[in-house]
Amino acid sequence: MSRLLEEFKEYLKEMNQYDHVTGLLQWDMQTTVPKLGQAAHVDALTYFSTKSFEMGTSEKLGEFLEKLAQPAEYDALDDTWRFIVKRMKRDYDRNKRIPADLYEAFVRAAAESGNAWEEAKNASDFSIYAPHLRNMIEMTKQVIGYTDPGKDVYDALLEQCEEGMDQATIDRLFEEVKTELIPLVEQITAKKMPENPTFHAYADPDAQRRVQWLLLDYIGFRRDAGAVGETEHPFTTNFSSKDVRVTNHYYETEPLSAMFSAIHEGGHAIFEQNVNPEYDNTVAGSCCYMGVHESQSRFYENILGRNINFWKPIYEKLGELLPQFKNVTLEAFEREINRVENSMVRTEADEVTYCFHIILRYEMEKAIFYDHVPVEKLPELWNQKMQEYLHITPENDAEGILQDVHWSDGSFGYFPSYLLGSIYDGMYLEKMEEELGSVDEILADGRIGEITKWLNEKIHWYGSTRTPKEVIAAVCGKEVSAQPLVRYMKKKYTRLYGLSEEA
Amino acid sequence: MSRLLEEFKEYLKEMNQYDHVTGLLQWDMQTTVPKLGQAAHVDALTYFSTKSFEMGTSEKLGEFLEKLAQPAEYDALDDTWRFIVKRMKRDYDRNKRIPADLYEAFVRAAAESGNAWEEAKNASDFSIYAPHLRNMIEMTKQVIGYTDPGKDVYDALLEQCEEGMDQATIDRLFEEVKTELIPLVEQITAKKMPENPTFHAYADPDAQRRVQWLLLDYIGFRRDAGAVGETEHPFTTNFSSKDVRVTNHYYETEPLSAMFSAIHEGGHAIFEQNVNPEYDNTVAGSCCYMGVHESQSRFYENILGRNINFWKPIYEKLGELLPQFKNVTLEAFEREINRVENSMVRTEADEVTYCFHIILRYEMEKAIFYDHVPVEKLPELWNQKMQEYLHITPENDAEGILQDVHWSDGSFGYFPSYLLGSIYDGMYLEKMEEELGSVDEILADGRIGEITKWLNEKIHWYGSTRTPKEVIAAVCGKEVSAQPLVRYMKKKYTRLYGLSEEA
Repeated sequence: MSRLLEEFKEYLKEMNQYDHVTGLLQWDMQTTVPKLGQAAHVDALTYFSTKSFEMGTSEKLGEFLEKLAQPAEYDALDDTWRFIVKRMKRDYDRNKRIPADLYEAFVRAAAESGNAWEEAKNASDFSIYAPHLRNMIEMTKQVIGYTDPGKDVYDALLEQCEEGMDQATIDRLFEEVKTELIPLVEQITAKKMPENPTFHAYADPDAQRRVQWLLLDYIGFRRDAGAVGETEHPFTTNFSSKDVRVTNHYYETEPLSAMFSAIHEGGHAIFEQNVNPEYDNTVAGSCCYMGVHESQSRFYENILGRNINFWKPIYEKLGELLPQFKNVTLEAFEREINRVENSMVRTEADEVTYCFHIILRYEMEKAIFYDHVPVEKLPELWNQKMQEYLHITPENDAEGILQDVHWSDGSFGYFPSYLLGSIYDGMYLEKMEEELGSVDEILADGRIGEITKWLNEKIHWYGSTRTPKEVIAAVCGKEVSAQPLVRYMKKKYTRLYGLSEEA
Repeated sequence: MSRLLEEFKEYLKEMNQYDHVTGLLQWDMQTTVPKLGQAAHVDALTYFSTKSFEMGTSEKLGEFLEKLAQPAEYDALDDTWRFIVKRMKRDYDRNKRIPADLYEAFVRAAAESGNAWEEAKNASDFSIYAPHLRNMIEMTKQVIGYTDPGKDVYDALLEQCEEGMDQATIDRLFEEVKTELIPLVEQITAKKMPENPTFHAYADPDAQRRVQWLLLDYIGFRRDAGAVGETEHPFTTNFSSKDVRVTNHYYETEPLSAMFSAIHEGGHAIFEQNVNPEYDNTVAGSCCYMGVHESQSRFYENILGRNINFWKPIYEKLGELLPQFKNVTLEAFEREINRVENSMVRTEADEVTYCFHIILRYEMEKAIFYDHVPVEKLPELWNQKMQEYLHITPENDAEGILQDVHWSDGSFGYFPSYLLGSIYDGMYLEKMEEELGSVDEILADGRIGEITKWLNEKIHWYGSTRTPKEVIAAVCGKEVSAQPLVRYMKKKYTRLYGLSEEA
């Protein structure tokens, strides 16, 4: 190893210490910190994010990257370090244009906006949040003005979340989804499925925690490299492949919620736990493409978790932990976990109407950044679109525009990733069945480990070293298309709801 | 405010950021981090502790303190900042003599030793821990050699934990305790108290968590400035008066354990939550005297929590949360929580024999630092002393010398603080009853808030600005003595065990 590379690695190690504690501060802010302790955490977060930003945009780092990109050094690097140098150089050139004081103000504003969002949601009062949202939108535009001068702001945001994606591509893919799924949902919702109160009966939160561990263990979450916290809104975060954390909530009368959150976040976590550990603490490790990431959480949650065969090997155990399920046949359970209906809240939506929740948010974000609709008009626009796609109107903003945390910390352009993830899943599923045979049979046999292994080897291992388009090309050998997802949904719901085959 | 003072405050603010994240890393290492994530946390902890140490021993800080100690600046300071400057100057002069690489090695060794202790305890194998303990002893001697050259090492350690305390004073106080309590315990243990299996029946951990909150709320723990975590060994930590955290464990068949841990840690926490908030993030805030700190946790746990009157206002509620207590009279409950017997584990011991657990550890520490007994002889010495004071012998080292975490991170000299705390409690109790009237009556009336207020105003508010001797002088107006504690115990246990009055 050259002396330069050695010094560069030392530099990265120090930079990583700052990222390590900012990650920990964020984890703690979500899971533990008391109300009055928030402000000190925000101060520390601002301080250490700024330190990390300074190191990530310093002259010294610029020199390292400049020198390492020269043939004399670059040619001697292995593939991993070539990727790291190239990727960091690109990000460096973009980020060093952001003024340090703007970055610091952005970090602080995001933390404060997060608190305001929470308060607004609890009070169901958009006006508490509006000035913060306006501020986050304006600051986001300013930041993009520096990182991607001359580029359409929303395209730049999409590119940040899912490299290679832009409005033109997403418009095409989402149009395919709309064309096919709108009539499918109409057909489904014309059929009424009876309610079963068992699914909304009291379920001991402690037993729900045990079910969560049953599920996490079952899908392959590694306890020695993972932890679980409790938050209102479940999420996954990681420090490296060796420390990956998920959170969950435990609604006393909605046990399915924690179960599917566990599988969803578990999917994210299994991804991170199985990235090549040599990439730990570099830009090569930890997948930074949100669509690719969501494709894994959603593959576990929907393609696997909402398949009756997933439950066959563990259904008895589930009944032992949550006795109410003893009175429910596996077939009734399957119908319940695939109940399709137009509903208010994205995170509780079924996998079919979920698509419309995303399309709505995508259109909202285009309205914000492309059409410049003012913040105070957004709740009304939200409600209009809810009517258009889901034929219902929120009773208040808490179950409407305030339901999601994302915009509060400036994560604009993230929402489309969820649907892109499902679109990728349709493609993975077809390829997986070509290579491994029927997923139904694998699941029914309790061989879910084979599926996880396939995903580990084809996708997880590469971390961030493959862009979304490269992942799809490597795994499926074709361009991205929504057709496989649509085929999967039509086949599944035609059977489940006894629809006519032409649907 | 002078420009110098302003710059000094900025400097402290930055230094505090490092302390903030080292505190958070330690909290997370105890409560959450998965096995494979430990190493990265140790790295970060070492990095940021070292940063903090560098700032705490820098030339720049030395200059600030030198200049602020000059009359021109010092005379213009208020009392708080005079204390801060004096205290920091004293600590600076001591700490700057420690070589930076020794400090870094100490922090890392302490973290590794903590892991080794845990492994050794789980395996009940002292040999896993022995080399780490030897190392911590040697490094501690080295550090003290720099901070307190020429001073007796163990006296220096005692002084660090409880300013103003030395072996001579502690020998005198502990001798008073031994003289009076050895015959008392003999009298008590001659009487057999029947076992009641209800106290060892299954108690839902979730219900135990609810009981914990009942108790924390009842004694005045503020939720908006506090949080609760789960660890094998309960502890309290704080970032400021606004973020104070306790932990607990929930043994399925030992509900009393979590209840009294909640009250004990709650006592520590109430102390920290009620320090003058102007002292936050300075050496004036957060009480650094361990005996004074333990006096508060032990006042709540023992003087209040083991008093039947404490329970009168909440006993019905307790029965609702843990139904097994519905079948136990309050009188039987009182007897159980005051059951005195010689037992292996300090943290589970009653308040009387607890004293001997501490005297044993104090003598062990004197053996280590004063008599230089080698590490491999310590388990044998431990077991000898267990026989001498408690007339029992541990079956293995896990329930013997490995039971406590303290030595693993170099907290030598801490143990005496627990008994010093109880000794102070005896004195506080007598003074409190002089000023407020009968504690029995106050508790029975549900006026526990008056007791907390008294402790807040007399003790908590001052944080670290009063040394232990100053606290005792200000609150009680006399020298430290163990007689009030002895009087309290003799009176209480003579009644409870029906002993003859001369005991």
